[in-house]
Amino acid sequence: MSLSANNPDRKSWLHVDKNSDFPIQNIPFGVFLTRDDIITIGTRIGDTAIDLGALHQLGYFDDIPLTDDIFLQDTLNDFIADGRKTWRAVRNKIAEIFDDNNDILKQNKKHKEIVLFRLDEIEMQLPVQIGDFTDFYSSIEHATNVGSMFRDPENALLPNWLHIPVGYHGRSSSVIPSGIPVHRPQGQTLPGDATEPVFGPSKLVDFELEMAFITTAANDLGEPIPIDEAEEYIFGLVLLNDWSARDIQKWEYVPLGPFLAKSFASSISPWIVTLDALEPYRVESPKPKTNQLKYLKYKGKKSYDINLEVSIQPQGAKETVVSNSNFKYMYWNMVQQLAHHTVNGCPVNSGDMMGSGTISGPTPESYGSMLELTWKGENPIKMADGSERKFINDNDTVIMRGYCEKEGTRIGFGEVSTKLLPVFKKK
Amino acid sequence: MSLSANNPDRKSWLHVDKNSDFPIQNIPFGVFLTRDDIITIGTRIGDTAIDLGALHQLGYFDDIPLTDDIFLQDTLNDFIADGRKTWRAVRNKIAEIFDDNNDILKQNKKHKEIVLFRLDEIEMQLPVQIGDFTDFYSSIEHATNVGSMFRDPENALLPNWLHIPVGYHGRSSSVIPSGIPVHRPQGQTLPGDATEPVFGPSKLVDFELEMAFITTAANDLGEPIPIDEAEEYIFGLVLLNDWSARDIQKWEYVPLGPFLAKSFASSISPWIVTLDALEPYRVESPKPKTNQLKYLKYKGKKSYDINLEVSIQPQGAKETVVSNSNFKYMYWNMVQQLAHHTVNGCPVNSGDMMGSGTISGPTPESYGSMLELTWKGENPIKMADGSERKFINDNDTVIMRGYCEKEGTRIGFGEVSTKLLPVFKKK
Repeated sequence: MSLSANNPDRKSWLHVDKNSDFPIQNIPFGVFLTRDDIITIGTRIGDTAIDLGALHQLGYFDDIPLTDDIFLQDTLNDFIADGRKTWRAVRNKIAEIFDDNNDILKQNKKHKEIVLFRLDEIEMQLPVQIGDFTDFYSSIEHATNVGSMFRDPENALLPNWLHIPVGYHGRSSSVIPSGIPVHRPQGQTLPGDATEPVFGPSKLVDFELEMAFITTAANDLGEPIPIDEAEEYIFGLVLLNDWSARDIQKWEYVPLGPFLAKSFASSISPWIVTLDALEPYRVESPKPKTNQLKYLKYKGKKSYDINLEVSIQPQGAKETVVSNSNFKYMYWNMVQQLAHHTVNGCPVNSGDMMGSGTISGPTPESYGSMLELTWKGENPIKMADGSERKFINDNDTVIMRGYCEKEGTRIGFGEVSTKLLPVFKKK
Repeated sequence: MSLSANNPDRKSWLHVDKNSDFPIQNIPFGVFLTRDDIITIGTRIGDTAIDLGALHQLGYFDDIPLTDDIFLQDTLNDFIADGRKTWRAVRNKIAEIFDDNNDILKQNKKHKEIVLFRLDEIEMQLPVQIGDFTDFYSSIEHATNVGSMFRDPENALLPNWLHIPVGYHGRSSSVIPSGIPVHRPQGQTLPGDATEPVFGPSKLVDFELEMAFITTAANDLGEPIPIDEAEEYIFGLVLLNDWSARDIQKWEYVPLGPFLAKSFASSISPWIVTLDALEPYRVESPKPKTNQLKYLKYKGKKSYDINLEVSIQPQGAKETVVSNSNFKYMYWNMVQQLAHHTVNGCPVNSGDMMGSGTISGPTPESYGSMLELTWKGENPIKMADGSERKFINDNDTVIMRGYCEKEGTRIGFGEVSTKLLPVFKKK
């Protein structure tokens, strides 16, 4: 099926600002609560949110085989389970409906009142019920920085790193959408030269700049996904702030990996940008430094040129950009991650989420965490309001943004913005 | 509310074998497919499965506030979310209905035909949709054995082990009920003195003898569960065979923990035995060897005396018991695990599953994995059919069983039985 929704020449009859992340070529999918307190699946063009449940009830998708309630749900899981053919048909149809040359909805005032919402009339929800959240560790720059800081700069990468897209299972229950604040976690840490741990608030709360892809149901128990089929099962991407408590992690993570240092919160942007919308922005992945095993070898361009940015906004002050990175730096790409994840027969379901790991680039300003940007706090970052940051302070808001741009078309992710509140106190 | 269902003197009008795991004092909960291809929630007395959906429709639970479809579901999640008061009321009512002195259902042939099933007429399903699966590492004997084998017998426990109920996030999508066979996983391993990994079938597939508890929804994001409230949120327990590929694990697990070595399958027994049913079998936990932080300090008996057994059955041969252990050996108990898991504010939902980690006892015959029982394969186990096992062979079936017994009442878990098939081959 053609990707006609990607036609760069199309304009929408809905207003779209020049620098909007959401031109008619984007058409992301999300879930929102409307002004009438109804949960629906929707998309967004410019600053207008579109109720796909209502559009479908009004008959605008009648030529696509869809169940009646496919958009009247509180998650995208069932729609995603319908597969790529359906996603494409729906996206192409939405592009048609909102094409400036199409008068049908444009001239129907009554229908427009039902399906269109201003952004301040809706509340974005978590777009999927995440069955399993996997987090990879796929940036060579990040792995090298961490290895240099905590082990040996001469042998920064662990022996398995160049052979395995290293990953671990994360916690689904604490994945939250942009806008939900997070409390500074408490936990055990081992201070300086102490031999006994202490309990208290984490002193080293950090962000991790990541992206995550959302899958459709892919395979049965026992059956690997071959790497040349993996792309079929990727619905789209979101921005991911994989909150981390560095001091808790340091004490807990040997030998079974990070646990409470991560599971207090992982924040995502609420609009899933489809892999189809990102098609024009494909680029080559970094060249492998070693021979990779056959099940990890792929053909074609499997990385995406997505500009990423992180800001910190202290309470009541302006935000300061602290990192500029790019998704294309990932050493291991998504099809390698998915092929690896399933090579043992692990089943992947609709709504599973797989994070990239911290996305650090080759230059110090492109590092994807405060740990790296301040080099363990040794080089604090100067903020616009004159204050300094080694890690994240109480009441700081961390904002991540991402977009692709090529020949005048910009496809963006909006933002994931999360305020860090002080430690939770029982009322 | 009283635990009248536990009355040891009660007899059922349903036949119960003397050594049955499922006397009327048990009343576990599960989900099964009936002879009419309907999924329902049920319980079991002796070798009779009872359709609770049908019983409820027939009015037998009318004096308990329950939604009409609470048992007509394909998972127990909603029932579990109703909370402990409801679980107790339903369990007490079931005990009444099947009490030998109660003629109402006993004398109603038509109703009995609707609600009662022989075990060969039903197919047990996964009892819950597992939102998140956490696996702990709470047996001091297991941690000591592993540390002795792979690190230093003099310093077998890692520095954090006596302070933290160490755990990690597992994979929910590959949790399966007893009876579903599992393929030997493939993956990367680093052979002997090689410097480059190879790809192929795992050569060291092992079981891990565990139990797991299932939770109800407990807390909001950010809000810890105090240890003295933790028990409120534990619905019940199952047997868990946490399949492990030792060679894959060895190469992949540093620094983020086990991943593909575990996520190919985790098998559980299908009947959830409630914590209420286990009440008579409470025992003290092992005495802490160090001072534990305040949030991990508890009062009372929080461990349970549950006899555990593992058998291996080669294809077409008799089974051989290879391990006899007990759940009471766990150094860290369930309330400590749950308090620790949420101390950072991580939310726990209805249907989450938390594994104990391998349950090894103090004696070599009580070790909970082949890794320990054969000491890395150095001391193969002799099987009844004359063959030997270092790890699990293709077409072996691993069977775990568990039960409590006291003053003539036996409460058991049935079994989790899983056949290991050869590597998956695409047809």
